Amino acid sequence: MTFTELLAGAWQKNDSLLCVGLDPDPAKFPAHLENQPDAIFRFCAAIAAATADLACAFKPQIAYFAARRAEDQLEALIAHIHENHPGIPVILDAKRGDIGSTAEQYAIEAFERYRADAVTVNPYMGRDSVEPWLAYRDKGVILLCRTSNPGGSDLQFQKVGAGKTALYELVAAKVAKEWNTTGQCALVVGATFPAELARVREIVGDLPLLVPGIGAQGGDIEATVKAGRTANGTGLMINSSRAILYAGKGEDFADAAREVALATRDAINRYR
Amino acid sequence: MTFTELLAGAWQKNDSLLCVGLDPDPAKFPAHLENQPDAIFRFCAAIAAATADLACAFKPQIAYFAARRAEDQLEALIAHIHENHPGIPVILDAKRGDIGSTAEQYAIEAFERYRADAVTVNPYMGRDSVEPWLAYRDKGVILLCRTSNPGGSDLQFQKVGAGKTALYELVAAKVAKEWNTTGQCALVVGATFPAELARVREIVGDLPLLVPGIGAQGGDIEATVKAGRTANGTGLMINSSRAILYAGKGEDFADAAREVALATRDAINRYR
Repeated sequence: MTFTELLAGAWQKNDSLLCVGLDPDPAKFPAHLENQPDAIFRFCAAIAAATADLACAFKPQIAYFAARRAEDQLEALIAHIHENHPGIPVILDAKRGDIGSTAEQYAIEAFERYRADAVTVNPYMGRDSVEPWLAYRDKGVILLCRTSNPGGSDLQFQKVGAGKTALYELVAAKVAKEWNTTGQCALVVGATFPAELARVREIVGDLPLLVPGIGAQGGDIEATVKAGRTANGTGLMINSSRAILYAGKGEDFADAAREVALATRDAINRYR
Repeated sequence: MTFTELLAGAWQKNDSLLCVGLDPDPAKFPAHLENQPDAIFRFCAAIAAATADLACAFKPQIAYFAARRAEDQLEALIAHIHENHPGIPVILDAKRGDIGSTAEQYAIEAFERYRADAVTVNPYMGRDSVEPWLAYRDKGVILLCRTSNPGGSDLQFQKVGAGKTALYELVAAKVAKEWNTTGQCALVVGATFPAELARVREIVGDLPLLVPGIGAQGGDIEATVKAGRTANGTGLMINSSRAILYAGKGEDFADAAREVALATRDAINRYR
């Protein structure tokens, strides 16, 4: 199945637009996982099991694994999710971006080594830096467009061309109208800027949007859903990471995570 | 020592502006390295030994290691270079770029795990995505500015603001005048656009520039050096990867690499 087919299936089956971000920070793990050699895998697998019927996607952030020499646990985690929670796409959040010959290597990393269903990619180097990813015709390629951090405005909000278009709008248009040769592209648009989320939705039609920034980053759920949903009430992967992962600190951390994930999914559904 | 001190020392000691890019592709390795479990390490270490008196920096590209589960060989390679070729800075070419909390993890990966002296970083997410790298006050942070690939123009050449400044010029000015709080920042500017290299040099004063695009990518050495050098004939790390690495295909591949590196260094020096 293609990434967009998996995503559409998960939206429907779990009645959910919630993407569960897996940013495992061992310093925040419950005490009983301390000093376990595979603590990262076990923590993330427990979160996945507790939220698999509430999520439209899982999004492991590779930096948290790479900082701790835990690439093997990331491989094991994605394989574990594919086996135990089939139908939920796995987005590798890597934000890679490089010239074609190097992007080919990164695509091998993401799609062949880790077997991710989709990957996040940085558009700064332009179209030919994106094409090697698109050679994997079934895989999702999710381009950064308007990011949720304060510095996101430094470049993305610059007016380009005749001065009426912001850079993020240009990226949205290029991806939707030129680069998306596979039908598997999507965009990252932060929840912290609902007006800009609405503008992107206007530009890209029904293209899926990955929306970080609710929860720990402070984005507003009602404004996000109303600004970003498509006509049929889907089109969004609204990500929450820390608020779910670290909802509890005890042995029952996965139950606490489930409660927050459930409340978040339902809060989102209230406005679809 | 700081990154810029290491770099200045290597410029002088080796009379060289040549950066040797380590993009190890096992499909192109000489036959005697085939099926060796540590072939990537051995190949790169041999190239480093053959060029250590000709280079101002080594630049391993992490994608080539990550595509083959060879992070351990990358760690070993950088440690080996530090031990055997002290004084030559190692730039980890990773082009990372993410929100602050994630950038902190990537900085741990690059500077604590791999012990790189500098790293390449993507500016698309703006200033706060760069700050966690700058917390390592001695380390080099090399921001993408104007890249050497054809699609580099898609975003970087867009006119911003009142329409007189290209996006890459804005990035150059922001890095040189606002973001470079450590004095250890540098920029990536491709050799394929000498006029734009000259423009960046005009904007950033003596800031070091990492210049990919000569050799396999076709950039012209004379034009590059004349456009990018500083008043004292330094300021550049002119990268060559494939043309050096794969100069020979036999057991004497390192000798062949040395010949090309020597010729390239000397060709660069002709125009300093």
